[in-house]
Amino acid sequence: MSIMTSTRDQIIAKTCELLELQGYHATGLNQIIQESGSPKGSLYYHFPGGKEELAVESLKHMGALVLARIRANLAQVEDPGDAVQTFIHRIAAAVEQSDFKAGGPITTIAMETAANSERLRTTCAEIYAAWQAAFAERLITGGLAPDRATTLATLTVAAIEGGVILCRTGRSRTPLEQVAQEIGTLIRAGNA
Amino acid sequence: MSIMTSTRDQIIAKTCELLELQGYHATGLNQIIQESGSPKGSLYYHFPGGKEELAVESLKHMGALVLARIRANLAQVEDPGDAVQTFIHRIAAAVEQSDFKAGGPITTIAMETAANSERLRTTCAEIYAAWQAAFAERLITGGLAPDRATTLATLTVAAIEGGVILCRTGRSRTPLEQVAQEIGTLIRAGNA
Repeated sequence: MSIMTSTRDQIIAKTCELLELQGYHATGLNQIIQESGSPKGSLYYHFPGGKEELAVESLKHMGALVLARIRANLAQVEDPGDAVQTFIHRIAAAVEQSDFKAGGPITTIAMETAANSERLRTTCAEIYAAWQAAFAERLITGGLAPDRATTLATLTVAAIEGGVILCRTGRSRTPLEQVAQEIGTLIRAGNA
Repeated sequence: MSIMTSTRDQIIAKTCELLELQGYHATGLNQIIQESGSPKGSLYYHFPGGKEELAVESLKHMGALVLARIRANLAQVEDPGDAVQTFIHRIAAAVEQSDFKAGGPITTIAMETAANSERLRTTCAEIYAAWQAAFAERLITGGLAPDRATTLATLTVAAIEGGVILCRTGRSRTPLEQVAQEIGTLIRAGNA
């Protein structure tokens, strides 16, 4: 049982990595099997629904990881504007550290599948909603009115998603740093 | 000559449509040939570099179309904050009108290829830079300081890209409407 659990985790981890680097359509089950070192049978044993089911579970795994990271980062700094600004700077640094190959773990698959797979689309929508709610919650405990916190949280998630795209395509951390600065200013002004 | 030009345009138009709906890896040359009604030979005649070359030309076509749309929309309204806000509302309406299947014409391919194709990556980076410059230029003629206009323009492009992702995955125009509201407020404050 523990060996099978670990095989499942290995498959999920490798799938997450490949989805972030190259997206859904470029990631084949054979590549996942080879690079995770898992026997083919174990993939179908753990994910009888095949690639789509594996992608759903991998998305949920990445969504939960990022959600925990959002909460942990936002809890570290008292002023909500500074907290969000510092967090976005960390994302910029992480994207640069990956040589601009990673960042925005669910972005590619969200866009590839939004029009084509109801199951993957709704999974991505739920993940984005959870991230947005975590930012909104932090802004509300930081003193912002709930309505304003909600719209600012949406802007924050949208600008991070888009900022990662600009950083990866431009091979520069500047876009996310500019996003961090403007969002920080906006939150501090909303809190004044 | 005119017939060949029109065939080339048909191939480009169909490729743009498919890239926006389903991305790079899901779009095969056979589908483009079939759906554009073009003979296979004409595709290789016009695009001897195959799929990558066709994608580069299609990206440039979409980039130029969107750039013209940005400039035209931003020229229609005098206050720069109102101009950007109105433009983002129009994007939200267009995404909804496509039944949330289109919007962000280069987003999917930008993320799919950022780590894997230098040629497609740099093409996307140049397009994003041109869009960002068009917003910055409008904010500067609207009275903002050049440095501030540059960071606000980056935020605007990032938040539109991310806002489209949230709208498409969530099947709702609300995220882009919230983005429009916050960006409009921010530009008006920066101009005060």
